[in-house]
Amino acid sequence: MTKGIDRRHLVMGSAAIGAVLAAAPAATGPLLRVDGARLRETLEGLSRFGRPAGGSFADGVSRTAYSDADIAGRAYAMDLMRNAGLDPAIDAAGNIIGRRAGSVSGAKPIIIGSHIDSVRAGGNFDGDVGSMAALEVLRTLDDHRIKTRHPIEMAIWSNEEGGTVGSTAFAGRLGPEALDNVYYGITLRDGLKRIGGDPDRLASAARPAGSIHGYLELHIEQGGVLAKAGIPIGVVDGIVAIDRFVVTVTGFANHAGTTPMAGRRNALIAAARLVEAVDMIVKAEPGRQVGTVGQLAVFPNAPNVIPGRVEMTVELRDLSEAKVAALGAAVQARAAGIATETGTTIDFHLAERVLAALADPAVQARIETAARALDLPFIHLPSGAGHDAQLLAKLGPMGMIFVPSIDGISHSPRELSTWSDCANGANVLLHTLLATDKA
Amino acid sequence: MTKGIDRRHLVMGSAAIGAVLAAAPAATGPLLRVDGARLRETLEGLSRFGRPAGGSFADGVSRTAYSDADIAGRAYAMDLMRNAGLDPAIDAAGNIIGRRAGSVSGAKPIIIGSHIDSVRAGGNFDGDVGSMAALEVLRTLDDHRIKTRHPIEMAIWSNEEGGTVGSTAFAGRLGPEALDNVYYGITLRDGLKRIGGDPDRLASAARPAGSIHGYLELHIEQGGVLAKAGIPIGVVDGIVAIDRFVVTVTGFANHAGTTPMAGRRNALIAAARLVEAVDMIVKAEPGRQVGTVGQLAVFPNAPNVIPGRVEMTVELRDLSEAKVAALGAAVQARAAGIATETGTTIDFHLAERVLAALADPAVQARIETAARALDLPFIHLPSGAGHDAQLLAKLGPMGMIFVPSIDGISHSPRELSTWSDCANGANVLLHTLLATDKA
Repeated sequence: MTKGIDRRHLVMGSAAIGAVLAAAPAATGPLLRVDGARLRETLEGLSRFGRPAGGSFADGVSRTAYSDADIAGRAYAMDLMRNAGLDPAIDAAGNIIGRRAGSVSGAKPIIIGSHIDSVRAGGNFDGDVGSMAALEVLRTLDDHRIKTRHPIEMAIWSNEEGGTVGSTAFAGRLGPEALDNVYYGITLRDGLKRIGGDPDRLASAARPAGSIHGYLELHIEQGGVLAKAGIPIGVVDGIVAIDRFVVTVTGFANHAGTTPMAGRRNALIAAARLVEAVDMIVKAEPGRQVGTVGQLAVFPNAPNVIPGRVEMTVELRDLSEAKVAALGAAVQARAAGIATETGTTIDFHLAERVLAALADPAVQARIETAARALDLPFIHLPSGAGHDAQLLAKLGPMGMIFVPSIDGISHSPRELSTWSDCANGANVLLHTLLATDKA
Repeated sequence: MTKGIDRRHLVMGSAAIGAVLAAAPAATGPLLRVDGARLRETLEGLSRFGRPAGGSFADGVSRTAYSDADIAGRAYAMDLMRNAGLDPAIDAAGNIIGRRAGSVSGAKPIIIGSHIDSVRAGGNFDGDVGSMAALEVLRTLDDHRIKTRHPIEMAIWSNEEGGTVGSTAFAGRLGPEALDNVYYGITLRDGLKRIGGDPDRLASAARPAGSIHGYLELHIEQGGVLAKAGIPIGVVDGIVAIDRFVVTVTGFANHAGTTPMAGRRNALIAAARLVEAVDMIVKAEPGRQVGTVGQLAVFPNAPNVIPGRVEMTVELRDLSEAKVAALGAAVQARAAGIATETGTTIDFHLAERVLAALADPAVQARIETAARALDLPFIHLPSGAGHDAQLLAKLGPMGMIFVPSIDGISHSPRELSTWSDCANGANVLLHTLLATDKA
């Protein structure tokens, strides 16, 4: 019964200042904001496609690329875009792209968007928030009859979870050999046909480098840094570089009962030391680098047989490609020592290398400005996960906005961000877009 | 072209001494010996049943219990036994048992034998050597018209590789609930019917404790101790006790890119420390104890996901049950520390406990005496692998003789013992049998 602080007053106060900072059209009125309730409504609407039978929003979603649920979810999104006057079309790579005209003839487009495909048994926020927020931002511009200088394109990239497939094609980096790749049991060729793409014209989806004025993506963090710190907005420095090795440890399989300890060449002992070495080497210096052995298989894998072989992955990530390379070299040097100690051989094969994609500093500054105007505390952080934005960074200045994932959980039905966090992110996206339009 | 030492003279010389030591019937002549060439012939004959199509002896054998190859191999063995006048019969548990009469009315039988079933893609020596050597010993007694005081029973135990099934029934320790167990795709019930056993009368296969005068089994070592030391005969102290734990390490699965190192509860880090701890704890004190993590599975097991759970086995073996228990306690104590260090939980479930089966000291002494008589160096060693002999030890004094496995390889087509090693083992079996008959 004590009189609480009226948060609305605080917000209005800071918003008035923010409006000046952001130089929004109604500079003398309250700061422009998205309709948080409408954003929630579209997210809840989208969540029905791929929901487990008999489940609720809390049961998450399985809307894997090219599935019936994906097709239905895409149709829902295209309807919303159509109603918003965006005239959505599907490009050859299955990306859904709508367009809102700008006032300056020949100005390059600003692209905003994300994806709506999910992992199997995923949540209702990964990708969905950025996609539906992009729509909400454009609806908000319409509501306030705001004309931008640049055309704004809204994109829903196809098959992000399978490996940023649609955005990779959009960036001109997906060759026809990829058409034979299999995602969730079907080839990319057949998958594209299912969602209205055109595998025979894949190259037509590509845009040239320098052809966009900017790319902005709102996304849930998928980690626990913001939630743990109680910070609503993350300004993404960039998307990390990844080196992923497949490592084979070869020892000698033998009877676990009859082979004395001294004579063993146990591949799992060597692998265990390597698992620990990766952890120790990555933790040994300050920074946000991460390193993980996530996959490991033992052969022949019987309780009474000394492991003769272990196959494992070693994955290293950091915003600095040089740091990732140095960590990889340190891990391999230690592995050579472990091999000698254990009488095994340890072979590294670099199975995947993803280069870092840095966010444009000017775009980062605009995100900061927007957050300040909205009175939303922010911190900078790298994106440890891959995103479509890393491909769009090849075409023009890129920026990403993160909102908190409660408990850092993602790729799970338990993935959760508050509606308020989603609206905050959309508001930052809105004002970053407006500032980018003026830049 | 230099004149070599004539090994036959050396053998004859020591054999003459040995004959006195062993007090064989022909005490003034050369020491009684099996026919090594005939033993080889029966082993090569047996190797045809279950041989890979188009393969040779060197390609090993798949003669898993209850298979067509097993049935054919058993028929071959029974023919040989019939020709040797042993009148073989199949008991309810599928064991093949033949009998050679003794001279003393009512004397308890001495049992000799082994098994002829193999693992999938196994070798031609595991079990086969002991079975065919038992036959060869009885043929040798016939050749020399040697009458024993005790009846000698030759046994070929059914389904040793699946878990000493036939000998367990013979020892009265296989309840009817085991009939539903599945071995190589069929139930024990159906398997027994296939090989001439009688699942409805399983209990009839049992012999009471104290009903045998002794049990002797020749077997390949299945480890590399004898081969490495260049010693032809192993006197088995006993068959080790085994504690087999299934261990569950529970951490928290999360995105490997977005979860900072500091916040992780990585089940594989904990598991790796435990793998090393088992090795270190087992090696920390002198003795022949062994400890192995042979099976390990990671969940969800993806390169980009921090392992949330690991399931693994921890197997500990030693001739001393107390030592096995102490090792298990030490491993669990260390695991509790690892769990605290890593923010995980580690649960141990004792999935299997095999008690030690000690070889009878008097039988061991007779094996030593026989080896000395034959001028064959020997050492004592535990059997780290399980054998039918551990069940027979419940019924009377048990002894086992080991011969070398080249490179310690077993359960593999590459399993190999020399024909000379096989004959040496059969000769030791022969003289241990004769000495046991007189005891």
